[in-house]
Amino acid sequence: MYLLVGELINTTRESVKKAVLERDEAFIQDLARRQAEAGIQYLDVNCGDIGTDKEEVEAMQWLVTVVRKVTDLPLCIDSPNAEALAAGLALAPTPTPMINSITAEQKRYQDVLPLVLQYKAKIVGLCISDEGMPNSVEDRERNARWLVENLRAAGVKDDDIYLDPLVKPVSINDQHGVEVLEFIRRFKQAFPQVHLICGLSNVSFGLPGRRFLNRTFLVQTMTCGMDAYLLDPTDKELMRLFYASAALLGKDRFCGRYLRAYRSGLYS
Amino acid sequence: MYLLVGELINTTRESVKKAVLERDEAFIQDLARRQAEAGIQYLDVNCGDIGTDKEEVEAMQWLVTVVRKVTDLPLCIDSPNAEALAAGLALAPTPTPMINSITAEQKRYQDVLPLVLQYKAKIVGLCISDEGMPNSVEDRERNARWLVENLRAAGVKDDDIYLDPLVKPVSINDQHGVEVLEFIRRFKQAFPQVHLICGLSNVSFGLPGRRFLNRTFLVQTMTCGMDAYLLDPTDKELMRLFYASAALLGKDRFCGRYLRAYRSGLYS
Repeated sequence: MYLLVGELINTTRESVKKAVLERDEAFIQDLARRQAEAGIQYLDVNCGDIGTDKEEVEAMQWLVTVVRKVTDLPLCIDSPNAEALAAGLALAPTPTPMINSITAEQKRYQDVLPLVLQYKAKIVGLCISDEGMPNSVEDRERNARWLVENLRAAGVKDDDIYLDPLVKPVSINDQHGVEVLEFIRRFKQAFPQVHLICGLSNVSFGLPGRRFLNRTFLVQTMTCGMDAYLLDPTDKELMRLFYASAALLGKDRFCGRYLRAYRSGLYS
Repeated sequence: MYLLVGELINTTRESVKKAVLERDEAFIQDLARRQAEAGIQYLDVNCGDIGTDKEEVEAMQWLVTVVRKVTDLPLCIDSPNAEALAAGLALAPTPTPMINSITAEQKRYQDVLPLVLQYKAKIVGLCISDEGMPNSVEDRERNARWLVENLRAAGVKDDDIYLDPLVKPVSINDQHGVEVLEFIRRFKQAFPQVHLICGLSNVSFGLPGRRFLNRTFLVQTMTCGMDAYLLDPTDKELMRLFYASAALLGKDRFCGRYLRAYRSGLYS
């Protein structure tokens, strides 16, 4: 129903970058374990921006190997670099991996598509094209439609596609959140079987109290029809809102998962 | 933009009922003050279910007098009983009062309408008719349309009308929340200038962790277009989500109110 991807193993976080550079196995495995225990479906693994492309490939191989020792969760192999994606996927071909990400940019699309097909992977598609970042609901719709049409033509099922509308900070323009909400509503009417995914933290960039804004945006986007997230599953208040929101949206039969989460102590 | 009504002075709460029966001025004034300080636009005053109609009228007169000594906030005079409404309104004719509530039931509509016109009051209209509680989106739409058309014909401005769709517990039917969300979307398209209001606690009746569900429902209903609430403004986490949600929905120019709330210490 909903698909949650644990986002913490990402070298844009300083502590993770340090752990990857020092090959600190225990640190990474602790992050993997804690996220897996919080109840997610995929574990994101990202080691961009740590050196040359070759160094990223080696780091990805190390990361995937280390994470696979402690969890059976499927991985979301995360890089803009097709070589790093290929290296990670080769070491984690099952259970069905997720690739993060493809875009509507010609070169990146051509580089990543073969991996999607080879691994029958779930694919995150960013709504960005060679014309740059989307600046409106319509830009997102155009890029989203291009991605769906091309991925379908290549044989990818709607159910394996997760489009990311690209969230921009409301501190720059207070309509940036609304644009994404409107895109979600329109897109889900046109493509009800294709999934929508996003990260939550961009929306709050430049404002204080970011985690409160991020949690609120989780509920708002769920209300409009988004059904997958890259998030920090160890943020208890975020997860409380997630289960509560799914129950109130009628996406949790008899509120069963909410009640299980409650009994597990999440709300205390 | 948004209109918040502090709901705590209500004799369905045991401590308030006791204070009203004992005419405990300090207790009531403390509730009034704490809500006023939390940043609301109206203060609800309800003393139903404490005895005979005559006793309710006397209690309402006492309550309004006591509350008016400590705050200049406009009052939301709350009773199903037109006599009690009249007694409260006579003592609080300015600033523009709110009347809670009228319905699409013939008798109640006829009893309450003269007060709405006499005080040029804002009016809460419950989407209930002589056929009973609404059981679907369509029931709510029919009752809502009846109320808007009749109130308009009587000379009430759209901007003074606050319709309450009536929220039912998701513990009884897990589609009860969704029904309200869908009603909000449809109604706001048809009547963009008429306001929608609700209380938050019915939705969680019968489930544990109710305050988490209530907070989540605040964000969900705001996302669909609801713009007024009867709520507990002293619930800090609820108010954090309220300001964050308004900012993310582009209803808070340059995130100004969110930033003021943040600087006031609400988020710490």
